[in-house]
Amino acid sequence: MNAPVLLFSSELDDPEPWRDLFARHRPDVDFRVWPDVGNASAITHALIWNIPKGALKRMPNLRAVFALGAGVDQIICDPDSPRGVPLFRLVDAGLREQMTEYALYGVLHWHRRMGEYTAFSSKREWRRLDAVHPSQRRVAVMGLGVFGSDLVRKLSAMSFRVSGWSRTRKTIDGVDCYAGPQELPTFLSHAEILVNLLPLTDETRGILNADLFGQLPGNGALIHLGRGGHLVGQDLIAALESQRLDWAMLDVFPEEPLPSHSPLWSHPKILVTPHIAAQASNERTERQILESFQKFERGEEPLGRVDLSKGY
Amino acid sequence: MNAPVLLFSSELDDPEPWRDLFARHRPDVDFRVWPDVGNASAITHALIWNIPKGALKRMPNLRAVFALGAGVDQIICDPDSPRGVPLFRLVDAGLREQMTEYALYGVLHWHRRMGEYTAFSSKREWRRLDAVHPSQRRVAVMGLGVFGSDLVRKLSAMSFRVSGWSRTRKTIDGVDCYAGPQELPTFLSHAEILVNLLPLTDETRGILNADLFGQLPGNGALIHLGRGGHLVGQDLIAALESQRLDWAMLDVFPEEPLPSHSPLWSHPKILVTPHIAAQASNERTERQILESFQKFERGEEPLGRVDLSKGY
Repeated sequence: MNAPVLLFSSELDDPEPWRDLFARHRPDVDFRVWPDVGNASAITHALIWNIPKGALKRMPNLRAVFALGAGVDQIICDPDSPRGVPLFRLVDAGLREQMTEYALYGVLHWHRRMGEYTAFSSKREWRRLDAVHPSQRRVAVMGLGVFGSDLVRKLSAMSFRVSGWSRTRKTIDGVDCYAGPQELPTFLSHAEILVNLLPLTDETRGILNADLFGQLPGNGALIHLGRGGHLVGQDLIAALESQRLDWAMLDVFPEEPLPSHSPLWSHPKILVTPHIAAQASNERTERQILESFQKFERGEEPLGRVDLSKGY
Repeated sequence: MNAPVLLFSSELDDPEPWRDLFARHRPDVDFRVWPDVGNASAITHALIWNIPKGALKRMPNLRAVFALGAGVDQIICDPDSPRGVPLFRLVDAGLREQMTEYALYGVLHWHRRMGEYTAFSSKREWRRLDAVHPSQRRVAVMGLGVFGSDLVRKLSAMSFRVSGWSRTRKTIDGVDCYAGPQELPTFLSHAEILVNLLPLTDETRGILNADLFGQLPGNGALIHLGRGGHLVGQDLIAALESQRLDWAMLDVFPEEPLPSHSPLWSHPKILVTPHIAAQASNERTERQILESFQKFERGEEPLGRVDLSKGY
């Protein structure tokens, strides 16, 4: 086999630290940065957050694609994305702990009525509100992959009543697990706090819509840290106006940065965060990508292989 | 023995649900409410949040005192409090989970810079801040009793670097345990987020003062949910002004409700909550008190016996 030729492509990431990383650890790798592909048939590996549609298809000798994130829909949504080439996503790099932190923060913020207490504090108002013990509070998590399963375990350890919903049935101690579209209504009917951690696929696009909000028990909270394409923004606003929902914390949006004219900004019942629920640390990401690259070359299986038939 | 005579005394709690509880389960108990003590020498049991100083001393046949809270300093601070009569405090009644929730919320709020993100959200500002992985963040918990030991375990499970400090040395997996005054400086020197869960004793009164804040690494956070008497308010304000501390979340105060003229209110770096970190649910509290009462009568040891020599 010829020396590896790695193509880097991302609108979000600076290529230079990656060039340095490979220069340090794998000086044999020919590191190229999109759009300076050179001879496309020479490319053997791709390291990408995103790349223009159809681009990967023009690389007949591509052996593996390493994604620079945990979500890979922006790669898979290209109908010309080469189906025969293995695709690996970031599976940890510190993301799991951060995702759980963010979700727990949102759960606790609403569960403990901290928005109200913060307002009281700024008005010098000593006012106690009713408290609900976690054993009386139902938290429902959509998506039970690496992130969701970590979150439900932590919630359960904190004595919350926890349910989880996934495409295929999971079994997790202390968690009521629901599966598939037919069990979604039951799962939703008691979801006081709904956390979305689903991957974006054809089945889940736009899943957070008026129909779904209408199946919730009412007056609860939504914590949305899946993918921008899950949420129908105007349906969320309507659900908040009609008390279907009481509060929402949103980290991902169809267009990022969220445009300044979006009605999601500065809504009194919405907290917008700028896609920071899980920020891969450079160090951990670099370590994982380098390890995946080397494993793949040795014929071993790197972490995070994406099942293209499922889309995650 | 004569039929039990129970004296109820609390400035905070309504006696009527308690009268009903005993009427339902122990109709033989003569239930009296302070100040209508009747013949003080008839009183055999006391159920109190607080009672005027010296009052208990005038009840020579008192067999046991049950506290209506987890903190008992307001009872013990009476030098005439009868030392020979066993005192039991609330040990759970759902308090532990709530205390951990509150502390975790505070930890996550500062750790994940949610105050800043909330301000950005209200200004339609998409701005990402640096994140710190929990394995790089030190949380230091003062007090490793029922509450503190639950909290440090949860923090450790979330991958934080956790230290604990207590009067006598504890051993807890994944937690760096420090003990006694001689190890306090080391404990404080790396405390980025300091959580106070100490009991109030002669040794801990005023412990959150300028001297202690001066030993912190600087620019961190304080989460104070011990007792009001721990904190020297003006020292906290000075520590916040001088960047010894960056943020504080306070739930307990020497005078409650916190007077409206207090400078702690509406300080941009302080979140005041009205002593709500742990609110005993009536149902759980009633169950525990009734159980303790019956156990004590049968000669068994109820939960929560206070060691009067230590003060907690």
